Amino acid sequence: MDLLDIFKDTADTEAFPAGTLIMKEGEEGHLMYVVLNGEVTVSLHDKVLAVARPGEIVGEMALINSDIRSATVTAKTDCELVPIDQGSFESMLRHVPDFSMYVMNVLATRLQSAYDMIED
Amino acid sequence: MDLLDIFKDTADTEAFPAGTLIMKEGEEGHLMYVVLNGEVTVSLHDKVLAVARPGEIVGEMALINSDIRSATVTAKTDCELVPIDQGSFESMLRHVPDFSMYVMNVLATRLQSAYDMIED
Repeated sequence: MDLLDIFKDTADTEAFPAGTLIMKEGEEGHLMYVVLNGEVTVSLHDKVLAVARPGEIVGEMALINSDIRSATVTAKTDCELVPIDQGSFESMLRHVPDFSMYVMNVLATRLQSAYDMIED
Repeated sequence: MDLLDIFKDTADTEAFPAGTLIMKEGEEGHLMYVVLNGEVTVSLHDKVLAVARPGEIVGEMALINSDIRSATVTAKTDCELVPIDQGSFESMLRHVPDFSMYVMNVLATRLQSAYDMIED
């Protein structure tokens, strides 16, 4: 499943110049984003957890179990993102084949990265 | 969604006495488990990440993105678990309402716990 195929023609996008703070850990948030162009950095306490590239998602935790951002996302380059609200997310889970497995994969990969950062 | 409703009458269970090592981080594994009775501890480098109770799952990462166990699971009490293989997992994703949201919730909760353990 390639989210770019789904969103490449969407008009509902938000552009962020390089360096922009897109979401901040501890703050409230109700949207996730699909990266359409450019790259964003996911970080926690100034440690980089992941870089999300076109077709990848950030902010999905806000739609799953908490309205409080668990990590900070900044624009690594000029970028263009597609905002996804709770209703669209749930609709995609129901109607887009493999979307749920994709989201699980993203979470599992981030969990593995987080585990790798926990000291022995 | 309550996994106990689905599995309470299943005959395909495995019993583990308290203290048993059920899965070990770094080893290969191909099953997840639903806790039917008792409690199991999920840990990493001897730090407790979570305690899973009846109706909760462990080992799901092996069915999502890696055959290598990301954490260690031990029987905290005598316990009875239902093994779920890849085929059953995918079937549940397709046919059990809210199962995918449930698994995402488990992953997001563990991710939040892991983030909380990463030092400032």
